[in-house]
Amino acid sequence: MQTLIKNAYILTMDDEFSVYEKGYLLIENDQIKQLGHMGEEPILKEGYQEVDANNSILLPGFINLHTHLGMIPFRSLGDDIPDRLRRFLFPLEKVMTKDLVSTSSEYAMAELMLSGTTTVSDMYYFEDAVAMSCEKMKMRGFLGQTIIDMPTCDYLTAEEAVEGSRLFIEKWQNSDLVTPMIAPHATNTNSVDILKKIVMISSEMNSPIMMHVSEMDYELAKLQKLYKQTPIEFLKELGFLNCHLIMAHGILLSDEEIELLSESKGKVSVAHCIGANTKSAKGVAPIKQLIDKGVTVGLGTDGPSSGNTLDMFTQMKMMANFQKTYLKDRSAFPAKEIVALATKGGAKALGMNHKIGSLEVGKKADMMLIETNSVNMFPIFDPYSVLVYSANASNVESTWINGERVVEKKQLVEQDLSVLRSNLNNQMDEFREEVERIQRRPY
Amino acid sequence: MQTLIKNAYILTMDDEFSVYEKGYLLIENDQIKQLGHMGEEPILKEGYQEVDANNSILLPGFINLHTHLGMIPFRSLGDDIPDRLRRFLFPLEKVMTKDLVSTSSEYAMAELMLSGTTTVSDMYYFEDAVAMSCEKMKMRGFLGQTIIDMPTCDYLTAEEAVEGSRLFIEKWQNSDLVTPMIAPHATNTNSVDILKKIVMISSEMNSPIMMHVSEMDYELAKLQKLYKQTPIEFLKELGFLNCHLIMAHGILLSDEEIELLSESKGKVSVAHCIGANTKSAKGVAPIKQLIDKGVTVGLGTDGPSSGNTLDMFTQMKMMANFQKTYLKDRSAFPAKEIVALATKGGAKALGMNHKIGSLEVGKKADMMLIETNSVNMFPIFDPYSVLVYSANASNVESTWINGERVVEKKQLVEQDLSVLRSNLNNQMDEFREEVERIQRRPY
Ligand SMILES: [Zn+2]
Ligand SMILES: [Zn+2]
Repeated sequence: MQTLIKNAYILTMDDEFSVYEKGYLLIENDQIKQLGHMGEEPILKEGYQEVDANNSILLPGFINLHTHLGMIPFRSLGDDIPDRLRRFLFPLEKVMTKDLVSTSSEYAMAELMLSGTTTVSDMYYFEDAVAMSCEKMKMRGFLGQTIIDMPTCDYLTAEEAVEGSRLFIEKWQNSDLVTPMIAPHATNTNSVDILKKIVMISSEMNSPIMMHVSEMDYELAKLQKLYKQTPIEFLKELGFLNCHLIMAHGILLSDEEIELLSESKGKVSVAHCIGANTKSAKGVAPIKQLIDKGVTVGLGTDGPSSGNTLDMFTQMKMMANFQKTYLKDRSAFPAKEIVALATKGGAKALGMNHKIGSLEVGKKADMMLIETNSVNMFPIFDPYSVLVYSANASNVESTWINGERVVEKKQLVEQDLSVLRSNLNNQMDEFREEVERIQRRPY
Repeated sequence: MQTLIKNAYILTMDDEFSVYEKGYLLIENDQIKQLGHMGEEPILKEGYQEVDANNSILLPGFINLHTHLGMIPFRSLGDDIPDRLRRFLFPLEKVMTKDLVSTSSEYAMAELMLSGTTTVSDMYYFEDAVAMSCEKMKMRGFLGQTIIDMPTCDYLTAEEAVEGSRLFIEKWQNSDLVTPMIAPHATNTNSVDILKKIVMISSEMNSPIMMHVSEMDYELAKLQKLYKQTPIEFLKELGFLNCHLIMAHGILLSDEEIELLSESKGKVSVAHCIGANTKSAKGVAPIKQLIDKGVTVGLGTDGPSSGNTLDMFTQMKMMANFQKTYLKDRSAFPAKEIVALATKGGAKALGMNHKIGSLEVGKKADMMLIETNSVNMFPIFDPYSVLVYSANASNVESTWINGERVVEKKQLVEQDLSVLRSNLNNQMDEFREEVERIQRRPY
């Protein structure tokens, strides 16, 4: 099966940032078979399909490096409330069910695809249901079952969650679209014993670890009190820095910790979730210092309760403005670099940069097409600037994942958004009742 | 002529933040005739029109308190370059023509309307052409001819620009949609003589003053060197604080300056342009302190060269995250307050809060309808949160200005966007040539 995309403004995001201002790209099955300037198109097999991109911008799909797909039901709930975690999140997570996580994940994947994201890295509960949602929706997912030292909606103890994770990894490790991870909740929310087990499983089963790190003041305070260690010293001692570790946030890192991370030689990366980090007033992660020290960085939205949308355009814009302002340098993080972080940065963090993150022959056909007819998309002196500073999720015209077109003319191809929404809505009754109970309580 | 909007989720933004979860609003001619809960609709005149808002969100249109509509041609040009002002902006502004400003302004107004903005406050060159664009496009505009102590594309001297401004104010002061202002470029770019003349004209002709204030390091340095004064001390001495003054930016204000502003008793306001200010690494204006001291604040995008889009949703999101992070308080500036700044804050700054900025009987029918069918708009526990943290410009379904529907089904009603674009594009030849000349120069 071949698809020829013609007349596209192609940003390959390869290491040379090659651009074809009027280019073609040929998909064969799940891969990019060829790409180049118009006029040099290859001979095609009978029955190929053609897409006239008409000067739209073709680039690799975004990689959302950290989110919680099951949390769509929390969107717009208690956003500006000081103790939101204890007031809303913990009590409501007790009423999460497998069906609610499943329908929320499908809805979230629709949002990802419609905004040009082709790979998502997720940690939540009932992750087996999330994996099945990936297959149904045709989304590429890196998924980890959350392990935390308290009873959750799917496991009573962290030990059970660890065993569940082992089974989850076994079940999904040969899947095409799903890569299983192991996901301790944070540095301060599991026992040392559990964390050691997780390091072992990651090494034995060759699974990435996804974990919240250096996000909370009280996380640092607890580790300091118990172990007189910073989060990174603590993780190093436990062996995490020799694992394939993706740290979500990394806001409160000291220079010494960044130095320790730089010694990990690219096995450890940071998922920069600037929108969620700043909406909750936690601060701005030291991304320039991390990159200067050779640490890989990708971008994430965090869950829809913290970041509200799963749209990476918002993250790119926020990152540009926050990092420039913090560094007091308008030329810091030019748009091109930010688009690179949102695409191949994430791919590198996932250990997948040989397969995704740029448009190159032999890589997976994971990509998006951005229309430039909308009012915000003119003129275009610099396509990277347009993507970071002007575009929004609604400019995504098409999305391909693994060679398959999942979005066309700004609509899902195989799924019906209104059905996905009503499926989710139907699962939300108990959740809404619990919200009302919480809101009635004195505060 | 009557239009009845039914079944809307109405956020009135009146002083009590009244909400009608299932409400109606009746437009008669240019005004809001009545509004309330469904089931209590008034008896209508024959020939009225009906709009079924089907649970969409109806709220007052945004007021973009500071921009430069003529600058669409600059969008995405040299965004991340350190000395952009001198390298691109000044040379390119020399080739601006009246026709280029006119077509750019029309295009910019389309962008405003399509993103729910119903009033714009602009300062640029050839402002008479901008006023005529307002009439053509049916946009409400507060417009000021820029006065600066150097030859510009429309006047050779500041004196000539002052005289031109006087004629401009005379011509437009009885217009329905246009309110003329007078617009000295900044505190440091005009002589004291010119600034004194401007204060006189503002008082005599009852015209608001729009001016860049406390934006640049070198602005403060120059005033300190020449007069040993801060910008606000300088403006106070010249009489500006007794005028109806709208200060764009106000980033670098000291506590003492905020104190001086608070003594102006509401005649002086700040247009907070957070997106542009942080993209250029200039900093975060002390908005909480200003509001606590009684200074009126509205939001602006700044021009499309600095802020890239004219979309106020981006400003609301940016403001929330930046102010929360700077204040280290996630509960600072809850979404409701931010929506208020983007609507009635701007109205108050313009001295128009008796006519626009909220949905109340007798006020102008300036408003927008936001659809909630798109993937990013579910669930809705708090409509203000959804507007600030989830919505983007593409969720605007309809816009009314002065009782007239200018956007319907996400399209301009009377204008054709592709025609506006090709008109602008046709005027850009000389501009593009100059861009190429600049880009060829060594840098
Ligand atoms: Zn998270
Ligand atoms: Zn400006």
